[in-house]
Amino acid sequence: MAGSIFGEYFRITTWGESHGPGIGVVIDGCPAGIPITAEEIQESLNRRKPGQSKYTTPRKENDLVEIMSGVFEGKTTGTPISLMVRNETQRSSDYSEIASYYRPSHADYTFDEKFGFRDYRGGGRSSGRETIGRVAAGAIAKKLLEGMGIKICAYTKSIGPVCMETFDEAEIENNPFRIPDANAAARIQEYVDGLLRETDSSGGVIECFATGVPAGLGSPVFDKLDACLAKAIMSIGAVKGVEIGDGFAVAASTGSKNNDNFCMKDGAVCKKTNHAGGILGGISDGDTIVLRAAFKPTPSIFKTQETVNKNGEDISVNIRGRHDPLIMPRAVVVVEAMTALTLVDALLANMSSRYDKILEFYNR
Amino acid sequence: MAGSIFGEYFRITTWGESHGPGIGVVIDGCPAGIPITAEEIQESLNRRKPGQSKYTTPRKENDLVEIMSGVFEGKTTGTPISLMVRNETQRSSDYSEIASYYRPSHADYTFDEKFGFRDYRGGGRSSGRETIGRVAAGAIAKKLLEGMGIKICAYTKSIGPVCMETFDEAEIENNPFRIPDANAAARIQEYVDGLLRETDSSGGVIECFATGVPAGLGSPVFDKLDACLAKAIMSIGAVKGVEIGDGFAVAASTGSKNNDNFCMKDGAVCKKTNHAGGILGGISDGDTIVLRAAFKPTPSIFKTQETVNKNGEDISVNIRGRHDPLIMPRAVVVVEAMTALTLVDALLANMSSRYDKILEFYNR
Amino acid sequence: MAGSIFGEYFRITTWGESHGPGIGVVIDGCPAGIPITAEEIQESLNRRKPGQSKYTTPRKENDLVEIMSGVFEGKTTGTPISLMVRNETQRSSDYSEIASYYRPSHADYTFDEKFGFRDYRGGGRSSGRETIGRVAAGAIAKKLLEGMGIKICAYTKSIGPVCMETFDEAEIENNPFRIPDANAAARIQEYVDGLLRETDSSGGVIECFATGVPAGLGSPVFDKLDACLAKAIMSIGAVKGVEIGDGFAVAASTGSKNNDNFCMKDGAVCKKTNHAGGILGGISDGDTIVLRAAFKPTPSIFKTQETVNKNGEDISVNIRGRHDPLIMPRAVVVVEAMTALTLVDALLANMSSRYDKILEFYNR
Amino acid sequence: MAGSIFGEYFRITTWGESHGPGIGVVIDGCPAGIPITAEEIQESLNRRKPGQSKYTTPRKENDLVEIMSGVFEGKTTGTPISLMVRNETQRSSDYSEIASYYRPSHADYTFDEKFGFRDYRGGGRSSGRETIGRVAAGAIAKKLLEGMGIKICAYTKSIGPVCMETFDEAEIENNPFRIPDANAAARIQEYVDGLLRETDSSGGVIECFATGVPAGLGSPVFDKLDACLAKAIMSIGAVKGVEIGDGFAVAASTGSKNNDNFCMKDGAVCKKTNHAGGILGGISDGDTIVLRAAFKPTPSIFKTQETVNKNGEDISVNIRGRHDPLIMPRAVVVVEAMTALTLVDALLANMSSRYDKILEFYNR
Repeated sequence: MAGSIFGEYFRITTWGESHGPGIGVVIDGCPAGIPITAEEIQESLNRRKPGQSKYTTPRKENDLVEIMSGVFEGKTTGTPISLMVRNETQRSSDYSEIASYYRPSHADYTFDEKFGFRDYRGGGRSSGRETIGRVAAGAIAKKLLEGMGIKICAYTKSIGPVCMETFDEAEIENNPFRIPDANAAARIQEYVDGLLRETDSSGGVIECFATGVPAGLGSPVFDKLDACLAKAIMSIGAVKGVEIGDGFAVAASTGSKNNDNFCMKDGAVCKKTNHAGGILGGISDGDTIVLRAAFKPTPSIFKTQETVNKNGEDISVNIRGRHDPLIMPRAVVVVEAMTALTLVDALLANMSSRYDKILEFYNR
Repeated sequence: MAGSIFGEYFRITTWGESHGPGIGVVIDGCPAGIPITAEEIQESLNRRKPGQSKYTTPRKENDLVEIMSGVFEGKTTGTPISLMVRNETQRSSDYSEIASYYRPSHADYTFDEKFGFRDYRGGGRSSGRETIGRVAAGAIAKKLLEGMGIKICAYTKSIGPVCMETFDEAEIENNPFRIPDANAAARIQEYVDGLLRETDSSGGVIECFATGVPAGLGSPVFDKLDACLAKAIMSIGAVKGVEIGDGFAVAASTGSKNNDNFCMKDGAVCKKTNHAGGILGGISDGDTIVLRAAFKPTPSIFKTQETVNKNGEDISVNIRGRHDPLIMPRAVVVVEAMTALTLVDALLANMSSRYDKILEFYNR
Repeated sequence: MAGSIFGEYFRITTWGESHGPGIGVVIDGCPAGIPITAEEIQESLNRRKPGQSKYTTPRKENDLVEIMSGVFEGKTTGTPISLMVRNETQRSSDYSEIASYYRPSHADYTFDEKFGFRDYRGGGRSSGRETIGRVAAGAIAKKLLEGMGIKICAYTKSIGPVCMETFDEAEIENNPFRIPDANAAARIQEYVDGLLRETDSSGGVIECFATGVPAGLGSPVFDKLDACLAKAIMSIGAVKGVEIGDGFAVAASTGSKNNDNFCMKDGAVCKKTNHAGGILGGISDGDTIVLRAAFKPTPSIFKTQETVNKNGEDISVNIRGRHDPLIMPRAVVVVEAMTALTLVDALLANMSSRYDKILEFYNR
Repeated sequence: MAGSIFGEYFRITTWGESHGPGIGVVIDGCPAGIPITAEEIQESLNRRKPGQSKYTTPRKENDLVEIMSGVFEGKTTGTPISLMVRNETQRSSDYSEIASYYRPSHADYTFDEKFGFRDYRGGGRSSGRETIGRVAAGAIAKKLLEGMGIKICAYTKSIGPVCMETFDEAEIENNPFRIPDANAAARIQEYVDGLLRETDSSGGVIECFATGVPAGLGSPVFDKLDACLAKAIMSIGAVKGVEIGDGFAVAASTGSKNNDNFCMKDGAVCKKTNHAGGILGGISDGDTIVLRAAFKPTPSIFKTQETVNKNGEDISVNIRGRHDPLIMPRAVVVVEAMTALTLVDALLANMSSRYDKILEFYNR
C-alpha cells in the first residue's frame, strides 16, 4: 500500500515528479506477444499533454515516450515494460514560493504531514504529470483489449452547469472539451470564457463506457469489478465521486423500475435495459459497462486566497504558475487508461476461475 | 484478486454461503493487545441481523458469533482471529426453483457465467449474509479505532425521494430506517408503506463520517485514502455510487467556491470549510472524513418479472422467499465496518512513512 | 505480511492455536468445479495426525475436518472454501508452567518480543498443529494437480546419520519413518530407540519430487518457481535449509559436470541429466522437480536444560508434555502440501503469460 | 506474481534486459527522510560490475546510476525512487547465433516455453545484469539499516572444494574472490586457474550475516523471516540451496546438541549458542542472523556441448561471448542486497504488531 502500484496481474508502478528528471511507469505482468510501438503509446500521451487549447495549461511539453525494456522485435516479451518521458520545461522558479505555505485544496499540507517535507516544485508527486505513467501503461492495456474486440471510450459529460444532451462520438475530438455534443461544447465555451475572465476554474463529469467485455469478469465480494473500477477512477487526482450504471439515481428509484429484465436475443442472454451498467453482483454481464466520475474544479485559481504558512501564520496568497482552468479534456484519456488497466486485470484474473477451462488450457 | 480478501495490513478473508453450514471471517494482521469480547462483536452483528422491523426480512436469525482463535485472556494475540456464525434457519426449499432461472438484477447469471454453476440456495455467496464476516471484523477494527479517539458513524441519508434535513445523532437508532431525522423517518414510513402494498422496494443513500482521524493517512497516487474507501464501499452489494466530501456536486462548482481555505485554530492547521471531505491529494487532512453511498432498490420484488431460464427460454417469474424491501437500515453497520477496516489499514500503513519516526519507534 | 496468508492466486489463510477451540483454513481463489469430498481431505489429515507410532507424540486427536463453505453438490464453487478441525484433547494444564519461562529453541521468547504476550498453551500459534490448515488446503491443491496428471511425493530421506540408499515408493507408508528404503528404516529404528532412551530427539531430511509438471511455470526474477518453493518449504516450522535439484552439492561442482544437456526424445525437448531439479531460470522445464528440506531435531527434549524466565532470571527446566522425538514422518505430508500449493499457484499464474493463448481462451 | 516485484512494504520493481537501452528499478514504499546520494548507490554497483579481475567477465561496463525520482534535497521523499543504468557495451552480434538453440542449463528453453519467444541478446531478462536493479535498491535498504545500527556482510565461503577456515573481515575486499581468508584465496586461485585452462567454471557458497537486528522481526507461519530470506536468496539466478544457521547440518544433529540455551547477559536475554542463526519460530531473536547460499557453476563454459535447436534437432554447440568463470565474487553484493531488502520489509511490517506501540506512535 505504498501507493504507486496498481493492479494484481497486469501490475504497473508509476514514478516521477513534475520537476524531476522524468516521469515513467514499469508494467510487470504484461502478457507476451502483444504488438506495440512507441508511436501507439505516444498517441495516447498526446491526448493528455498540455497546450492543446487555451483551456488547458500553456506549458509546452512534448512528453516523448521511450521504451526502455520489455518490447523486442515489436512485441511485448512478458517481462517488465519500462516506459519513460523526460521532463523538459521545468521552471522550478515558478514554485519556489509555494515551498513555504500550503495552497488551498492542494496536497501540500497533507504531504508535509505524512512525509515531513515535500518536493514542492510543481506539486512534485501530486502533480497531474504523474498521470503520464498511467496513460502510457493504459495505451498497452487498450491495445491488448482492442485485439479482443473490447473498446473503451471516455468523454466529458458536463462542465459546470452544462451537460451533454446528445451523443455523437465523432464530435469528441472535435472540440476542446472532448464533449460528444457540439451544442453543449458551444455553451461550455461561453461558460468557461466567463470563468477565465474571473481567473476561476470549473468542475465537471467524465463518462466512460466499455463494449465487448465478456461476461464473467470481476470477483464476488471485495474485488467486484465495480469496486475495482471505483478505486481505479477515484485514484485520479480531483475525482470526488464515482458511479456505475444509473449510479446515484438508483437511490430514488424502485425495484420495479430499476431491475433489468433478462431476455434471449440471437440465442444469447441479454438484458432489456442496462440500469446496472453492465455489472451484476460485481461480475460483468456482457452488456456495456458504464461509469462516471465527478471532477472538482482545479484548485489553482488566480484569485487571492487565505491560507497558512509553515510557521503557522495566517496569510493571503496569489498562486502563480501555468495551470488548467479545466482538467476534464485532458483527464478523459486518464479515465480510459484506468478503465483499461482495470479490465485487463479482471480479464487475466478470470482465466483461473473454472477447472474445466484450466484443463483445456493445459490440454490435460 | 480471488475476491474474498480485503486489506493489506489488517487483512480479512470472509467465507460462507447463505445456506451452507455457516459464515465467517479470518483477520490476519490484527495488532496484539486489543481488548475484545464476543459480546462487543455481537453488538455490531445485532445491528445487521434480520427481523429488526417490518421493513427488513422477517427471517429470524440469531447470528451468534464464536471466537475460534486469535484472542487470549481477553486480548487479541497478533495471530489470526477466526470468527464464525452458524447458519440456522436455512429454508433451502424456498430456493429450489431459482436454480433453473436467472433472477433479474441478481448475480445468478453472472455467477453461472464465471464459475459454470452456482450454489443457488439463498443467493449462495452473493447473499447479503456474506456481510456478517465484514461486520464481525469491522467490530474489531472499530474497537481499535475507538481506543485512538477515532469515531465512525453511518446512517441513512435518504430513502427514495425523502432525504434527511436535520442531523440528530441520537435519533439514528430510534427509528427503523436509521435516519437521524425524526420527521424524515415519518415521511419515509409513509413512502415505504406504499411500496410494500405494491410489493416493491426502494433505493437510498447512506452517509458516513469519521472524526478524530489523524492527518497523513492514505498514500499518493493509486492507494489514495478516498480510492481505498471507494473500493471498500462499492464492494458492498447493491452500491452503485460513492462520493467523498461534496462528491458529484463539485462538478457544477468553481474553484473559488470549492476550495477549502486553511487557517490556524488553537495552534493547529485547520480548514475553514470541508468540501474535500477530509482528504486532500488522497491523504487525510485531520478534518472529518465524509462519504456517501447510493444503494439500489432490493431486486427481490414480488411482482411478476420477465427473465430467461438456463435452457435459454424467455419466461415470467414470481420470486418468493423472505427479502428486505429496504436494505439501508441494515447496511448502515456494513458501511461503518468497511470504513473502519479501510481506516485501520491506512493507519497501519502510515507508520512506515517517515524514517525519523521509524528510528524513534525502534529507539535507535 | 501479517503472516498467515500463502499464495497469490490459490490463496490460503490458516488460523487456530494448539489449545483454542479449533484450527482451520480458508482458501480463496480455488477454481470452480474440482470434485472434492471431506473424506479425501481427511485422508491427508490422517497422515499428519499424532499417535501413528511410538515415534510420534502419543496425543490422540481425531482431527476430523468439516467443510464449512465453498463446496456444493460435491464440487468447489469458486468461492472461499472454509475447512475446520475442532481441537479435542487439550490438556492446557500441561503447559501452565511454561507461561513463565522461555523454552530453548522454541518460539516462546520471540513471540513475547513481537506481540508483548502469547497464548502459551501448547505453543499456541507456533504449534505444529498449525499445519493442519496447510494439509487440508494442500489436499485440494493435490486433487487439482492430480486431475492434470501432476503427482507429488515426499518421503524421509535421512534421519540423524542414516540416509536412504534405495528408492522403493511402496515402502514409504510401510514403516513408521516414511522412508522408501526398508533397510534404512531398520537402522533408523535402532538409532532412534537409542535416542528415546536418552529422551533426546533427531533431525532429518525430507525429499519431495513432482512429476508431470508442464514447462513454463514460475516467473523470471523474484517469483522464480524455486524461490517460491524455498519460501513455502522454509515456512514449515523446524526447517533450516532448502535445496533444489543437486542443491548444495553444486557448490563443489564444475560447469562441465553440472550442466544438463538438452536432447530430443520422442519429439520433445528433454534433458539428459537433471542436476537442475526441473527448474531453469526459475521456470519449470518439464522434467521432474526435486527438492529437499533439512529439519532440526524437535526442541522439546526431556533432559534438564538451562534457560531464563520472564523475570530475567537464569533457571533450569525440565519440559513435560507429549512431544514427537521425530517430526519427519508427520511432516512428509506437510511438505507435499506446501509443494502442491506452490505449484497450483504457479499453474494459475502462468495462464496469463501469452497473448495468443489469452485470445484463444476467450475465443477472440 | 508477474515476477519482477519484491517486498510488501519496501517494494521494488526491477526492469531491463542485458542488451536493451538500460536496466533499472523503482522502489515504492521507501520511508521519507533517508539521506542518500547517487555516489552511495554507485559504490554498491561498483562491487557488482564486471571487469574487476580476470576471474570475472572482461566486459567493461561503467554501470553509472541516475536517480530519476524520489530524492529531493538529498533525502528520500517517501514517493517512488526510480534508479536507472544505461547499457553501454552491448555487442548483440555475439548472441545472434544463440537465438536458434537452447544453451544447456540456461533459461533459453524455459523462456521460450513460457512466453513463446525471447529477447535472446545476452540472455535478455535472465541475464545477470538484472541484478543491477537489486543492488541499487539494496544500497538504499542498507543505508536505512545502517542508520539503525544494523550491519549486513556477505562473502564467499567456498569455491569448488576450497572452503574458508578463518574469518578476517578486512580480507574480503582484498582478494578477487571476496573470501575472508587469505590462505583460502591462494588455494582458490590455483584451483580456478586450472579450471580456466580447461575453459570450465566453478560453483561455490556465499555466507551472509546481519548484526544489530532487533528481536521481533518476521511473522509466524508463512511469512517467517527465514522463509522470506529463503525466497529472496533463492531468487538470485544460479542459487540452488539456502540455509539458515546450522542449515543442513541440523539434520544429523540431536535436540540436546542443537538447542540454544537462553541466558541473561548484561540484563538482556541472550543465547549461549546460535545454531538457530538468529531466528526462532520465524521471528528474529536479537542474535546474529546467518545464512548461506549455494551457487551453481556458471553454465556458460567454452567446451563443446550437446543441445537441441528450435527446429527440434540434436546439435553440438560452442558458446562464445564474455562470461564469468565464477559468479560468487560479484554475487556477494547481490546477496547483501536481497538480505537488506528482506530485513527492511520485516522492520516496517513489524511496526504494526502491537497495539500499545501503535497508540504510542500516534500519541493517543
